[in-house]
Amino acid sequence: MKISEYFPIWDQLTAEQQKWLKQSAVYRELPKGTVIHSGELDCLGMILVEHGRLRAYMISDEGREITIYRLLERDICLFSASCMLKNIQFEITVETETDAAVRIIPPAGFKRLMEESAPMANYVNQLMAGRFSEVVWLMEQIMWKSFDSRLAAFLLEECMLEETEVLKITHEKIADHLGTAREVVTRMLRYFQGEGMVRLSRGTVEILDEKKLGQLAK
Amino acid sequence: MKISEYFPIWDQLTAEQQKWLKQSAVYRELPKGTVIHSGELDCLGMILVEHGRLRAYMISDEGREITIYRLLERDICLFSASCMLKNIQFEITVETETDAAVRIIPPAGFKRLMEESAPMANYVNQLMAGRFSEVVWLMEQIMWKSFDSRLAAFLLEECMLEETEVLKITHEKIADHLGTAREVVTRMLRYFQGEGMVRLSRGTVEILDEKKLGQLAK
Repeated sequence: MKISEYFPIWDQLTAEQQKWLKQSAVYRELPKGTVIHSGELDCLGMILVEHGRLRAYMISDEGREITIYRLLERDICLFSASCMLKNIQFEITVETETDAAVRIIPPAGFKRLMEESAPMANYVNQLMAGRFSEVVWLMEQIMWKSFDSRLAAFLLEECMLEETEVLKITHEKIADHLGTAREVVTRMLRYFQGEGMVRLSRGTVEILDEKKLGQLAK
Repeated sequence: MKISEYFPIWDQLTAEQQKWLKQSAVYRELPKGTVIHSGELDCLGMILVEHGRLRAYMISDEGREITIYRLLERDICLFSASCMLKNIQFEITVETETDAAVRIIPPAGFKRLMEESAPMANYVNQLMAGRFSEVVWLMEQIMWKSFDSRLAAFLLEECMLEETEVLKITHEKIADHLGTAREVVTRMLRYFQGEGMVRLSRGTVEILDEKKLGQLAK
């Protein structure tokens, strides 16, 4: 994938700016499970996802996790360059969920580019607004949606991402995504199984009734 | 207050841009309880708070509220101009909590200014990052902090804002701020009263032991 494809404002950059972006982006292949970015102080740069899937999550003091969003092909990870964004004061961890290939743009140079180029600054603005909206959506889910509905939505999303109806995932892992305890997940999955929506076996969750789960997720 | 004081990047604007900002900002006095902005479609413009206090909150389908953040003197409200920010897809309501005076900058013109001026685009970026951090902080509180601690922190913050130790506030109102049900607030306040931290009477909560509440809030 070309660098220009990540930036819809490419044509509004100067030839020099385009050249800098092309030359400074470093290609890297990352095996599944690589922690790319962790915490506030880490500042690797902007990550452009070429292929694979990344997961951004938060960790509580007690080590509990919750998935904030996923990054797929063509996505840009902003918060791995949080040092170039004034006022970002939260700690996000970004990890590869599958084998992945990314390009990394160094933060200092990118910051300079944003200071020079209003189109680029506005585009970063747009990216942040998108992430902001996702986080607000997630907060609404947590506050106002019941857990059965969140779990159903999660299972359906996973099926879509993994392109399968038999998810290889532990209850512990699901709990980490949804920011809850394993027991809570296990209890609800058993209820789903009782209702004929899923079939459970060691380390897998098989989706049996997508329609019913879909109604629950709404 | 001068318009220039709201924008630390004032000196990086052109004389024309400065003139536009000064001329287009409309002064308005708003009584307590005025809804300034409501929902996604509303797009009044950027609000610069001259004095008073504004509250930004979300409302669930069932009418339950939660306070996202407060705007005080010298603050700028970004989301009342969400139409000029691509990708903002959530609905926030902004209301005056006290009598207030604001200046309003029309969104179309401000959008143009952001497109022209990289310093302004980066400053808006910074403002958004600050709000983003507040929302992430709030989400962490909701997910991982117990309710007693959130309630204690809320009472102490209210005392600071209102400059009093006797808060005139109903349990219903507190529930709206914290995104919970009235009964939950009443139960916890009674527990606080039992522990000698507050004294309750009709429509008021009096803080008796600030230190103890402070420890709980941590």
